Amino acid sequence: MQEKSFRVLLEEWSDMAWKEYIPHISIDCVVFGFHDSLLKVLLLKIKDQDLWGLPGGYMGKVEVIDYAANRILMERTGAKDIYLQQFKIFTELNRSEDFFKDYPDSLWHKQRFVSVGFYALVNFADVVPVTDPFSDTCEWVDINNIPAMMMDHRQIFDDALLTLRRQLNYEPIGNKLLPEKFTMPELQKLYEIILGKKLNRGNFYRKMTGYDILDKQDESRKGGAHKSPNLYKFNNEKYTAALKEGFKEGW
Amino acid sequence: MQEKSFRVLLEEWSDMAWKEYIPHISIDCVVFGFHDSLLKVLLLKIKDQDLWGLPGGYMGKVEVIDYAANRILMERTGAKDIYLQQFKIFTELNRSEDFFKDYPDSLWHKQRFVSVGFYALVNFADVVPVTDPFSDTCEWVDINNIPAMMMDHRQIFDDALLTLRRQLNYEPIGNKLLPEKFTMPELQKLYEIILGKKLNRGNFYRKMTGYDILDKQDESRKGGAHKSPNLYKFNNEKYTAALKEGFKEGW
Repeated sequence: MQEKSFRVLLEEWSDMAWKEYIPHISIDCVVFGFHDSLLKVLLLKIKDQDLWGLPGGYMGKVEVIDYAANRILMERTGAKDIYLQQFKIFTELNRSEDFFKDYPDSLWHKQRFVSVGFYALVNFADVVPVTDPFSDTCEWVDINNIPAMMMDHRQIFDDALLTLRRQLNYEPIGNKLLPEKFTMPELQKLYEIILGKKLNRGNFYRKMTGYDILDKQDESRKGGAHKSPNLYKFNNEKYTAALKEGFKEGW
Repeated sequence: MQEKSFRVLLEEWSDMAWKEYIPHISIDCVVFGFHDSLLKVLLLKIKDQDLWGLPGGYMGKVEVIDYAANRILMERTGAKDIYLQQFKIFTELNRSEDFFKDYPDSLWHKQRFVSVGFYALVNFADVVPVTDPFSDTCEWVDINNIPAMMMDHRQIFDDALLTLRRQLNYEPIGNKLLPEKFTMPELQKLYEIILGKKLNRGNFYRKMTGYDILDKQDESRKGGAHKSPNLYKFNNEKYTAALKEGFKEGW
């Protein structure tokens, strides 16, 4: 059985889209995955092309945008409860028109689309990437080794990473990414990987303690060559409050 | 000469809008104004109704969204260089359909619209509010005394205020809102008015100094009953860098 080409698939899909979705508005998701000291992003390789793209889609006529973003991501990952955050809307002229210039003007995708960017940080051990009909593969790619991307998807990725890094200054991070109990150096390592730089150990300890979201455990990590480091857990109540209201240490 | 009613104006305007703008996407601007220890927001009173709304509009077929937001705001304020920031997209079902339910289905405004929220903080002494054709007045309203608002505009306002308050944790604020030279208590007062709460003087001084965006002047404020407080200026270079990269004191 011969597989349908990208072009045929797209033109078939277009007719359905005009009926189902709100035109001119799309969604692109930047899903960062963390596990075992690696930070990756979920990308799809476009069929018949040497280009990669972010998982994305459109908003149903009776969907709110957060619901649509979660539906799109569930289709790509099987994961139901990913906490996606809107971060920016991308509206450059001809971002979609140019990419589909060889297609008829009536093609859904060739209209002017503005895209709402969402991002999430998940434990990639919890996610099973699923390829969509327009793609050869869907996989985790090292953030330091991003391949050529379609349209303005590289820009969307860059802006999401910037937003994630800024988020470290006003929201807690790390729940579900680290084991239930972790050491301060393990938490610091997570921050360093996201930021792409080394942090001072004393400053990190002082600042993190100031945020008041950790419960120190009466145990330490056994078995290392050095003094056993203390174990910590996130305090769920304080962690949730900080997510909602920002850090206590803030203004 | 009899003035045209809201209904007649709207139906005339609708025909033009279908030609000029991208459907389904609107813009709402939450403009906070600060001056002389007061924080206000710019609102329009809707013609023939006891409801107020945010300055808003639509995106031209060849406009990017930041340009459109600035154009809309210039029409309402005469101000050209207001730094507007996107903060959220509002997509609740029936947010526009219900408000215009007594109008024909073909009315531009009765389509499903998702609205991109922008906010700005300006010196309201620099701005001259201008009424639009659909409104009786355009004026600065105390943020503690917000009147009944159309559609989901109250929600948009609340989310913008939350975003502005969070912004204090990761970006500098105050340039153009305070005189060129100001005292630390004057800067603290600005933060207190935005946050709606008192701050500890010693903590404020320590934290603000840590941000490293101020140049202490060799002058103090003369004439008060107490010890003359030192004057400060924002260091433009450091202020701009912090706007772009976040505070040095961050991670």
